[in-house]
Amino acid sequence: MLVVHKYGGTSVADLTRIENVANRVAKARDAGDDIIVVVSAMSGETNKLMDYATHFSANPAKKEMDMLLSSGERVTAALLSIALQSKGLDAVAMTGRQAGIVTDNAHTYARIESIDPRAMQTEIAKGKIVVVAGFQGINKDGSVTTLGRGGSDLSAVALAGALHADKCEIYSDVDGIYTTDPRIEPKAKKLDTISYDEMLELSSLGAKVLQNRSVELAKKLNVKLYAKSSFSDNEGTLITQESNRMEEVLVSGIVLDKNQARVTLRGVADRPGIAAEIFTMLAEAHINVDMIIQNMSEKGSTNLGFTVPQSEHENAKKLMATFDHDIAGMDFDEHVCKVSVVGVGMKSHAGVAATAFTVLAQNDINIQMISTSEIKVSMVIDEKYGELAIRTLHSAYELDK
Amino acid sequence: MLVVHKYGGTSVADLTRIENVANRVAKARDAGDDIIVVVSAMSGETNKLMDYATHFSANPAKKEMDMLLSSGERVTAALLSIALQSKGLDAVAMTGRQAGIVTDNAHTYARIESIDPRAMQTEIAKGKIVVVAGFQGINKDGSVTTLGRGGSDLSAVALAGALHADKCEIYSDVDGIYTTDPRIEPKAKKLDTISYDEMLELSSLGAKVLQNRSVELAKKLNVKLYAKSSFSDNEGTLITQESNRMEEVLVSGIVLDKNQARVTLRGVADRPGIAAEIFTMLAEAHINVDMIIQNMSEKGSTNLGFTVPQSEHENAKKLMATFDHDIAGMDFDEHVCKVSVVGVGMKSHAGVAATAFTVLAQNDINIQMISTSEIKVSMVIDEKYGELAIRTLHSAYELDK
Repeated sequence: MLVVHKYGGTSVADLTRIENVANRVAKARDAGDDIIVVVSAMSGETNKLMDYATHFSANPAKKEMDMLLSSGERVTAALLSIALQSKGLDAVAMTGRQAGIVTDNAHTYARIESIDPRAMQTEIAKGKIVVVAGFQGINKDGSVTTLGRGGSDLSAVALAGALHADKCEIYSDVDGIYTTDPRIEPKAKKLDTISYDEMLELSSLGAKVLQNRSVELAKKLNVKLYAKSSFSDNEGTLITQESNRMEEVLVSGIVLDKNQARVTLRGVADRPGIAAEIFTMLAEAHINVDMIIQNMSEKGSTNLGFTVPQSEHENAKKLMATFDHDIAGMDFDEHVCKVSVVGVGMKSHAGVAATAFTVLAQNDINIQMISTSEIKVSMVIDEKYGELAIRTLHSAYELDK
Repeated sequence: MLVVHKYGGTSVADLTRIENVANRVAKARDAGDDIIVVVSAMSGETNKLMDYATHFSANPAKKEMDMLLSSGERVTAALLSIALQSKGLDAVAMTGRQAGIVTDNAHTYARIESIDPRAMQTEIAKGKIVVVAGFQGINKDGSVTTLGRGGSDLSAVALAGALHADKCEIYSDVDGIYTTDPRIEPKAKKLDTISYDEMLELSSLGAKVLQNRSVELAKKLNVKLYAKSSFSDNEGTLITQESNRMEEVLVSGIVLDKNQARVTLRGVADRPGIAAEIFTMLAEAHINVDMIIQNMSEKGSTNLGFTVPQSEHENAKKLMATFDHDIAGMDFDEHVCKVSVVGVGMKSHAGVAATAFTVLAQNDINIQMISTSEIKVSMVIDEKYGELAIRTLHSAYELDK
């Protein structure tokens, strides 16, 4: 079986933990697997290098940042390879370039364009464990590029796809995907399996285990993804395509996102293009808009609501002021949160959303905004009811059973 | 004028010193030079990474060590480039690979095989300052290689040669080449100029400013080399081909090497190949033999003397014991040192060596071994007279004038 392991920063934080990772890889090797290991920088290293750079410039050139930051993963890859060799295992370290990863030219958030897996395949055929520096590749000019946040996960998934690996195991300090945040609801249960689409909804909603880009790529390449802990031997969660078995599951998880502020524009003038103007202005100010809800008011004008990150609340307020003459009234609230119910079962089962609305109403929690997708219901509510809503919904969908 | 600058580890030891280097480069740029800057790792970084590796293995794989250690220079190159950009200068950082440096496969002590300067030339033509990570290249398989001790000096000289640079300035914490060690003889004078050959003798004799490999390469490629300090605006020393002016100079410098132990073998059996056997055995034990002197004794047998590093003294002693039946007597002395007089003037002036012998005799310093080259006289003496010999010779050749 060909398996890609990926170990994040906390799993390789110091020499003892790198040793621990070497032991885990050795164990998998003993079990007969062919292994590609993708590693992140030792935790703290990337921040240290960033601090160095910002000592010189508030806005250092991205090409140079890529050369700087990519060094952290190279160090870990070389060290893990040495640690494996010291255990008598045949290992070889590779940079992103040597692993055949070619990206576009977008320094610091490059996209992988192609992977030439032959160098890795040659080493695997020789019986070697291949240790690859994550987060990096080169562009067509030969410059080092990095893949942005969560880039090492992306490297791992992309390599697993290019090598047609049997699975891709993402190791972190969390042992899988839970029905909700266990710090809010101690009855939260770890999921054995979850679909790519549910995982995408969960991670975009604030579950931090896997970044969306890697899950999207895993879905596209049909890579069997496992979220596991490098600190335990627990089973972890398999993220894969929907199966029939999954359809029995109505709801997979409940997510709370507290980093939300609400903007409501009432009586927006009914002239063509005004919504486009508003959202273009927000985009140009790099304000990330999340939910958007528009409906007609009684008088023929439009009501428009959207949410932004709390840190952008003041900026959004200032920008909206420029539309004063087009808008009857504005309402801003930074004390809101977003509660979401995610599950592929919603596709075939009516009433999932209705259950959410009912139980929140029973608890006197007012729903300010609602948006839905095929497998998700999101509700904006007063921030102070966030945790209560999570526990209430978790129980209503019997996720603790 | 196209100039290659090279800054060593102490010159880029921390962010303040990198800032200082950026200021120096900016000043040279203002003066109108086109500039390639080669940098070492921040001092301490390479040792830290080595310690990491030896935590896992007493003898880590060289290929992995190269990937590990080469990261230090990349960090400095990226940071210096960012520092230059923050001053409004147009700079670009390059790895050894991007600078076109291709080496052989000898990981950790690779030799440069070729340099393709086109990428650097393209950037220079755009008006950019090119900052290159020293000490590294790639081999034909695309693996990262490093050039061994003094590797960044070597990178700088090789790039200067490939680019036909007007000069190559090697910056360190010493402001040039001195007639002798100023800690021993405060009257030591900095040399304005010295020939490649003299510099080769001086550095092989223990003057640490420039490593032999870089001076040899500079000689081969006819690169005008300057040894300068990054902490002052002093002129530095030019290392170049012999000029007529130089021939007036009888002696350029006096060097003391205290890391010497003497082995004398008396009455070595006169059978063919015995010297070869002795030195092969020493070589196989990785004992670096420096001076070798052989002459006939009265009885037809041979006397053989040589020096080894003091740390190898005991090992040499043990090895020589195996030749007991072939050798009449052995004499070992670890309390010796080597004093050397270097100067191109010796080629055309008789009596330089005689002066050395005379003044040492006048000071009752017994000379135990002598060896000479075209531009050097080396003498092994009792260790305790080392400093006295240096001062005496420095004055005898009027180097303090």
